[in-house]
Amino acid sequence: MKIVIIGAVAAGAKAAAKARRISKDNEIVVYTDDTHISYSSCGLPYYIEGNFDDYRMLLVRSPEEFEAQDVKIHLQHKVIKLVPTTKQILVHNLNDNQVELVSYDKLIIATGARPFIPPIKNINLPNIFTLRKIEDGINIKEKAVLSKKVVIVGGGYIGMELLEAFVVRGLHVTLVENSNHIMPMLDPDLSELVYEQLASINRGRFEIIRGESAVEFNGDENGVSCVKLSSGQILETDMVVVATGVKPNVELAYDAGIELGVTKAIKVNSRMETNLPDIYACGDCVEENLIINDTAAWIPLGSNANKEGRCAAINASGEFDEFNGVLASAVTRCLDLTISMTGLTEKTAREQGMEPVSVTVTKYDKVGYMPDVSNITLKLIADKATGRLIGGQAVGAGDADKRINTLTTALLSRMTVEEFCKNDLTYAPPYSPTIDPLLNAAEILRSKLKN
Amino acid sequence: MKIVIIGAVAAGAKAAAKARRISKDNEIVVYTDDTHISYSSCGLPYYIEGNFDDYRMLLVRSPEEFEAQDVKIHLQHKVIKLVPTTKQILVHNLNDNQVELVSYDKLIIATGARPFIPPIKNINLPNIFTLRKIEDGINIKEKAVLSKKVVIVGGGYIGMELLEAFVVRGLHVTLVENSNHIMPMLDPDLSELVYEQLASINRGRFEIIRGESAVEFNGDENGVSCVKLSSGQILETDMVVVATGVKPNVELAYDAGIELGVTKAIKVNSRMETNLPDIYACGDCVEENLIINDTAAWIPLGSNANKEGRCAAINASGEFDEFNGVLASAVTRCLDLTISMTGLTEKTAREQGMEPVSVTVTKYDKVGYMPDVSNITLKLIADKATGRLIGGQAVGAGDADKRINTLTTALLSRMTVEEFCKNDLTYAPPYSPTIDPLLNAAEILRSKLKN
Repeated sequence: MKIVIIGAVAAGAKAAAKARRISKDNEIVVYTDDTHISYSSCGLPYYIEGNFDDYRMLLVRSPEEFEAQDVKIHLQHKVIKLVPTTKQILVHNLNDNQVELVSYDKLIIATGARPFIPPIKNINLPNIFTLRKIEDGINIKEKAVLSKKVVIVGGGYIGMELLEAFVVRGLHVTLVENSNHIMPMLDPDLSELVYEQLASINRGRFEIIRGESAVEFNGDENGVSCVKLSSGQILETDMVVVATGVKPNVELAYDAGIELGVTKAIKVNSRMETNLPDIYACGDCVEENLIINDTAAWIPLGSNANKEGRCAAINASGEFDEFNGVLASAVTRCLDLTISMTGLTEKTAREQGMEPVSVTVTKYDKVGYMPDVSNITLKLIADKATGRLIGGQAVGAGDADKRINTLTTALLSRMTVEEFCKNDLTYAPPYSPTIDPLLNAAEILRSKLKN
Repeated sequence: MKIVIIGAVAAGAKAAAKARRISKDNEIVVYTDDTHISYSSCGLPYYIEGNFDDYRMLLVRSPEEFEAQDVKIHLQHKVIKLVPTTKQILVHNLNDNQVELVSYDKLIIATGARPFIPPIKNINLPNIFTLRKIEDGINIKEKAVLSKKVVIVGGGYIGMELLEAFVVRGLHVTLVENSNHIMPMLDPDLSELVYEQLASINRGRFEIIRGESAVEFNGDENGVSCVKLSSGQILETDMVVVATGVKPNVELAYDAGIELGVTKAIKVNSRMETNLPDIYACGDCVEENLIINDTAAWIPLGSNANKEGRCAAINASGEFDEFNGVLASAVTRCLDLTISMTGLTEKTAREQGMEPVSVTVTKYDKVGYMPDVSNITLKLIADKATGRLIGGQAVGAGDADKRINTLTTALLSRMTVEEFCKNDLTYAPPYSPTIDPLLNAAEILRSKLKN
């Protein structure tokens, strides 16, 4: 049997490796228009920051390792057409400019996502970057070494991680977020808290401008030199990174009659099957099921991509596996701040017709007499109708993510707040207060639900 | 109504505070033979280590704060007899040596636990300490300041925490554990790992001797000067701390006809009621229900004591509350090492007639290219008959406790390994690998359970 995989960053590479582990006999062929495969794009901000010098640290498996296992890797080969009726794909070899028809028995689409490029004037000037691929990281780092000032457009995950990276490198950073809140995936009160906490550790190293957008870049053939904001303000800069989100690469699939979901990413079932026979999809190009209330969500993260790639490979190989969905768990770091979340926000719960009840507490993260004690703010959200926990957000120094992972497990088992209050979390002075902030918040939420 | 509380460290103090919060009218009276109330004894090792200088940082609520809320606190008043038939107690005032009969409507016993003193020759020499009360901490710290060498007898939680404290203070430490394993509450393989990891960071600062016991202390009126081991080896020392475990203070209750459980701690129901009417018990003197398989366990920890004190106060005040039990979750730190556990070990599962299936993995705690990456070892245990997760242990630098708290929530909801594998934990390079060690271990355990 011949398994053809399109794409080879996280989901595609994982699928290839897993498919080979399942069967030594199947023919496994991978096509990618990229020059690298199997890399951790989530690690690019840390490469730019200077945590390590060699970008090859980001590579998980090399093409040579795959070839040694008889997995054929075609770099810089762009798939330009799917022909499901004849079970073939049309491949454009970017090296020699030839095209070729390739047949498959099973096809796995792992085309990923790409940066969303907003329609800002002169966005094609040199030294204006997006961050997605290895080359992007290399180019940004090379320019950062020579720069004093940088403007980041967008205050989501990538924007915040790059803010840290550039600040650590000693550049002066201006981050522009067009909505009224950075980290807009959080509820507004927690977004506001992230802003305030960053302000308190700023020490003149960066500026965050909210509620304004970049409307025009200016410069010359040497590159961008300033950014004009919607207010008319002009920011001088040596470089710009546009980090205004990503969109799924679904055109190839859609054009072939593969169904998209409500989020406009590829729709798959729990076996990662598309609506067309023998065609699977996985990774950042597919839509996920949100386990909490079985609704569609698009959560393009490396952890999900890995699990989906594995599942697609198992099923494409003729075995059986299911991927039941995601909880929308995430964590990011910005300087000393950990920002983590899982499940629904109050905002998304309301959008989905639920009546959310929430509580926000700010507490010490360990016992008050420990020398490195700091504050953690936790927001817990429950569904009033069922009393179930449906989400949480945490912001603070240190291990805010610990509380969120404890919560993901509660969301997975559809636990009520009442039940969660019985939890017996570990306790010792260096790790938490006697009553953990999480249990503290849950107790308050429990009382609120009763009234 | 008059509520009388015996004991005021964690459970007793919490009960007094909660009882007052419930009702402004009830008379609340507390008797303790201690000179301090409402303190964090778990913080004593960190006080000795020098994380803070003033022991009063360990006090949660002062007697004055209680008095201001009309809670009467009697320090150095030892209750020497319960008379349940007349609903009275006999109190010995250690200050003026008078005894007094005191009546109650509701009685809450929170007599706690005391150090177990092994029968070692000359154990009453000066500079041989146990660690339980504030005075113990003050005395140990005063002596440590003047000492170069210390011997710790016992390698459990307190022994390991004191090892850290003395090493940080610059003393040379010899720890003697009579069993073959330090941290004997862990399974032997994990205990061995703790030993090895400590050896790897030792740098000549301490020695751990296993499988030998202290059989004799020698010295003079100035204090202990050496410890003789069962092997005949003599350890010269300036001071000794005996940390060979604790036993519950149940004599007063037992003498009055209050039933003890199989663990020899006081037996209570989920409302913290003893077998005698209007008598409640809570904290380190009571036996707990292990939620995992509803068996009796004695887990004397401050986190449990607080919850139990709260529950006892609510019920004694005429309202309704239940404490369903514990998962035996715990964490401790020894130098750079975090040691954490929850639920049953393989050993205890087998003792309880289960057939445990386990997996142990050693993995990076974050992505390999992050500068502060280190190893974490995780052991997961499932019940073969039901496929349910029943326990876990983690050892490593950093946030080993994060994985254990994620697991406690799974144990609470009686989750199977199969179900847990669907978990969606947070991921970013500074916090975990793409596939968290916990999910990695769970996947392997899932395969093992199928075979």
